[in-house]
Amino acid sequence: MAIENLHDLFVHTLRDIYFAEQTIVKKLPKMAEKATSAQLRAGFEQHLAETKQHVTRLEQVFETLGEKAKGEECPAIEGITEEAEELVKEIQDPETRDAAMLASAQAVEHYEITRYGTLIAWAEELGLSDAVGQLKTTLAEEKATDQKLTQLAEGRLNRRAAA
Amino acid sequence: MAIENLHDLFVHTLRDIYFAEQTIVKKLPKMAEKATSAQLRAGFEQHLAETKQHVTRLEQVFETLGEKAKGEECPAIEGITEEAEELVKEIQDPETRDAAMLASAQAVEHYEITRYGTLIAWAEELGLSDAVGQLKTTLAEEKATDQKLTQLAEGRLNRRAAA
Repeated sequence: MAIENLHDLFVHTLRDIYFAEQTIVKKLPKMAEKATSAQLRAGFEQHLAETKQHVTRLEQVFETLGEKAKGEECPAIEGITEEAEELVKEIQDPETRDAAMLASAQAVEHYEITRYGTLIAWAEELGLSDAVGQLKTTLAEEKATDQKLTQLAEGRLNRRAAA
Repeated sequence: MAIENLHDLFVHTLRDIYFAEQTIVKKLPKMAEKATSAQLRAGFEQHLAETKQHVTRLEQVFETLGEKAKGEECPAIEGITEEAEELVKEIQDPETRDAAMLASAQAVEHYEITRYGTLIAWAEELGLSDAVGQLKTTLAEEKATDQKLTQLAEGRLNRRAAA
C-alpha cells in the first residue's frame, strides 16, 4: 500500500498495531506458563483477555473506515518479543526469569502506548471521532497494565528489602 | 554471558541499552537530514547531542561495576529503527513523512524510557546507588524529549485546525 497522506499513514499504523496485538495474543499464554510468581501469571492471563478485546476494538475501527481488518508485519514487536523469548530460555533461576519477563512485558506495553498515542493524535487530526473513542479506551487499559507491572516490580523490591 | 541472577540480568540489559543508544547515534543524523520541518530537524540534532552523553554515562556505569563497556545486539531497537527507515523511504509527501518520523522517534523514546525505568529499579534492588543517579539523569532527558515530540505533534495539529 502506497502511503500518500496522513490517512494512509493512519491505516498503515493501524495494521501495524493490529499485527502487534495478534502477536501478543499468541505469545502471552507461553509467558504465563513460564511465570513462577502467581501474581505475574495472573497478570499475564488478565492481560491476554484484554488484548483479545483490543483486537476486536481494532476490527471495529477498520470497519468504521470501510477498510478490511488486516495486519502488516511489525518488526518492532517482533524484535521486542524475540528478545523476551531469548531471555526466558536463557535464564534458569525462577526469580530472575520473572524479573526479565516483567521487564519485557513493560517494553511491550510501552510500544503499544506510544503507537496508540500516535493513532489517537492522527485520528483527531483526521476528524475520525469514533476511532478516537475506541483507541482511547484501549490506551487507558495499556497504561493501567503498565502501572500494574510497575507495582509488581516494586512489590518484589519491597519484599527483598524486608528480607 | 550466562544470566544466573539479577546482577547478571542488570549487566545484560545495560549492554542492550548501550547497543540501542549507539544505534540511535548512528541513525539520528540520517533522520535529521530527511526531516522537512526545521523544528523537527532541530529536535533530532539536539537529541543526537544528548544521546552521545547517554552513551558516555552508560560507560561510566559499566566502570562503576568494574565491567568493560560492551554492547549486546538488541533486536527491539533494530525492529523499531527498521520500521522507521522503511517508512521514510516509502513516503514521498514531506508533511506525511515528518509525521511518520515523529511517531518513530516517540517509539524509540518509549523503548528507552521502559528500559531505563527497569534498570533503575534493578540498580536500586542491587544497591548500586551511583548507577541509579546516572540512569535517572538519562531517564529524565528521554522523558523530556518524548514530551517535546508530543508538543511538536500537537503544534502540527493546531496549525492544521487553524488552516
